[in-house]
Amino acid sequence: MLSKSQISFIKSLHQKKYRKEHGLFIVEGIKSIKEFIRSNYHIHTIFYNSEQYNLLPKLPANINLFEVKNAELDKISTLQTPQGFLALVHIPKNQPLEERELKNQFTLVLDGVQDPGNMGTIIRTADWFGFKKIICSPDSVEVFNPKTVQATMGSLARVTVFETDLPAFLASNKIPVFGALLDGASIYKTEWGNEGLVILGNEGKGISPEVIKNITKPVTIPRIGEAESLNVAVSAAIFCAELVRVRN
Amino acid sequence: MLSKSQISFIKSLHQKKYRKEHGLFIVEGIKSIKEFIRSNYHIHTIFYNSEQYNLLPKLPANINLFEVKNAELDKISTLQTPQGFLALVHIPKNQPLEERELKNQFTLVLDGVQDPGNMGTIIRTADWFGFKKIICSPDSVEVFNPKTVQATMGSLARVTVFETDLPAFLASNKIPVFGALLDGASIYKTEWGNEGLVILGNEGKGISPEVIKNITKPVTIPRIGEAESLNVAVSAAIFCAELVRVRN
Repeated sequence: MLSKSQISFIKSLHQKKYRKEHGLFIVEGIKSIKEFIRSNYHIHTIFYNSEQYNLLPKLPANINLFEVKNAELDKISTLQTPQGFLALVHIPKNQPLEERELKNQFTLVLDGVQDPGNMGTIIRTADWFGFKKIICSPDSVEVFNPKTVQATMGSLARVTVFETDLPAFLASNKIPVFGALLDGASIYKTEWGNEGLVILGNEGKGISPEVIKNITKPVTIPRIGEAESLNVAVSAAIFCAELVRVRN
Repeated sequence: MLSKSQISFIKSLHQKKYRKEHGLFIVEGIKSIKEFIRSNYHIHTIFYNSEQYNLLPKLPANINLFEVKNAELDKISTLQTPQGFLALVHIPKNQPLEERELKNQFTLVLDGVQDPGNMGTIIRTADWFGFKKIICSPDSVEVFNPKTVQATMGSLARVTVFETDLPAFLASNKIPVFGALLDGASIYKTEWGNEGLVILGNEGKGISPEVIKNITKPVTIPRIGEAESLNVAVSAAIFCAELVRVRN
């Protein structure tokens, strides 16, 4: 049985402030938890509903296991319908990003994406198409937000997300900088070359002016109809799909 | 000032049952409301916050206008942060779908899409790429759900959504039936021809077995990485973008 202080500790991790303070985030559902077990992430504790014990894989000895009742899971879960398993996972240190790691590949760069669902969907889509890294501005939504983690469907365990000051980072490296803008070359006619960064902006405001300055190749998804804009996760997906198409 | 019964009437429209009973749905935000005014939809009433009266366009005389206070908007709004304007709009009659209307074009067909945000994003994306019609199975999420309407960002005013029993409909027409499946031809190597239906399935279960039977051309978005699946709105967007690419 969980103590009151355990419950309030886990519930505190629903909030960014306490995730940062304790260096832990929440992953729910056995499928996603398994992806994190297989990854470079370190698992702190897994809380499991006794009825579903048989779904647990064989675990390394350094993972704490804790049986809980359904009513307890309801209290600590971030979901309306808890999924029987909740893990606390250590937040990895933000790694420095070396220019050589970006060579001979394409990397998505997110400038101020705010919606946790969009962020999670972008990570999931990047994983599908084999993009291993994503770079985010510091004002983007935190990737360890429970809604983001949930929307990645386990892909967060495989895609490394770097956080960095974009204008300084873009100015200091020599990789071509593509950007999703409304007045660029058609995505279907762009000369992509062999490597590049692809910048996508905030849901309402788009790419910030200081970041736009660093874009050397503006690219546009042609509009045939009348919608004013595309959802940012949709745009990211169309960029990933087109890059895979032209490079294969 | 709104009466108690007006407030409870509008609030009832947050629920599908009462939208169906009264034949009305809710649109919020002046930008979206303007799209509906310009469209074939009929507006019933617009509730507006007096401070933002100047944002209202010139309106036809048959639209009821009703000034409300912020506190009243808070009560009737479906949003956490109401946007100053809320309109009640008549739900159009479900039109019969004629095969000839599907000729020489591509149309998305949604089989059991459940998430209102996904449905709205698909409608918005279809509008961007110039797809004027979407066909839905009866068990898909209702397009007049407030979250769906919101996610379309006004595009629902331009894209006609038909609801029909898919197996019967597919069996009775001669348009080629493409379907997003995991074991089809690569989307990049598909011979699309001149017209077709493109079926996308439910978030968890994919396309239902009775509908799969009618697919003549299974198509797959190639997976390079490791994610188990793509979000359905992301898949729909990649199909729309690829169709626009090959046909232009």
